[in-house]
Amino acid sequence: MRQLKLSKAFTLVEPGPVVLVTTHDGDKGNIMTISWTMVLDFKPVFAITTGEWNHSFAALRDRRECVIAIPPVDMLDKVVGIGTCSGADTDKFARFKLTAVPGRVVRAPLIKECLANIECKVVDIVRKHDIVVLEGVAAYVDPARKEKRTVHAVGDGTFVVDGRRMDRRKLMASKIPEGL
Amino acid sequence: MRQLKLSKAFTLVEPGPVVLVTTHDGDKGNIMTISWTMVLDFKPVFAITTGEWNHSFAALRDRRECVIAIPPVDMLDKVVGIGTCSGADTDKFARFKLTAVPGRVVRAPLIKECLANIECKVVDIVRKHDIVVLEGVAAYVDPARKEKRTVHAVGDGTFVVDGRRMDRRKLMASKIPEGL
Repeated sequence: MRQLKLSKAFTLVEPGPVVLVTTHDGDKGNIMTISWTMVLDFKPVFAITTGEWNHSFAALRDRRECVIAIPPVDMLDKVVGIGTCSGADTDKFARFKLTAVPGRVVRAPLIKECLANIECKVVDIVRKHDIVVLEGVAAYVDPARKEKRTVHAVGDGTFVVDGRRMDRRKLMASKIPEGL
Repeated sequence: MRQLKLSKAFTLVEPGPVVLVTTHDGDKGNIMTISWTMVLDFKPVFAITTGEWNHSFAALRDRRECVIAIPPVDMLDKVVGIGTCSGADTDKFARFKLTAVPGRVVRAPLIKECLANIECKVVDIVRKHDIVVLEGVAAYVDPARKEKRTVHAVGDGTFVVDGRRMDRRKLMASKIPEGL
């Protein structure tokens, strides 16, 4: 994996792909599937919706760090599988044959098979709305990963795969931070 | 436009399309482009990131209502145009030749040309993070709209169009609310 400029990390999350979020509780790593994500600025700051109903929430709350990993479409069945079992009784890295790679800043592991990974610190937990605010502290992409299309959850059990890309950089020049 | 069951409204936002958000300040309607959105539950409850930097924010804060409209890809240039000018000096409905349709519950207008519209009430404004929490109160889709592909902002001036759909309803049956 190649390090990515942190200023570009929000472009991994903004299009709305389903992501995998890893945590580490001090003893072992775990993974959850999250499609409820939001970018909070033209910065590596993100919100995700999670709470007590996710086993990973305790590690996120207590350790205050995680990794957002971006899976491409060829991982869809693993993504769905991860989202429909619990770390309470399952070692998801083993069950889904995923490779945990140590991060540089946080103890939550990167996922080698993913397109990109963002190491994050928890900035705040807005309990009233079950929103966790994260700040990216390091980001990586795997340029060698051939499948680059991500997948978007509709929420009803169907998913939409990335189609073609359209360029409106010139029209949006006034809004986009320099260097993107 | 045909009324959509409110329980299905979150499926319009969860895949992460760029949306248009309309407001009404008591005098006139306005539109902003928002790609920073998140679903908060399997319910018509949404978060968007916005704040004082958007002219629409004052109307959203004061009137506590808005409409989330979902534009298909054939509206991309209007979506970008709406996001790069201000309601402070522009009548965006006139400039972008969009048709304001009265909602049933809120005064913010629906946009006739969009695929779908969700009338929303403001539930809360989390000022610390510039997050506005919305609850849908009525939703509509236009089944006659031929172009159904939505578009996802990458954040760098490029956009990804919806590609093919993949069905994982069976695998996800345990997680999906009944009736979706």
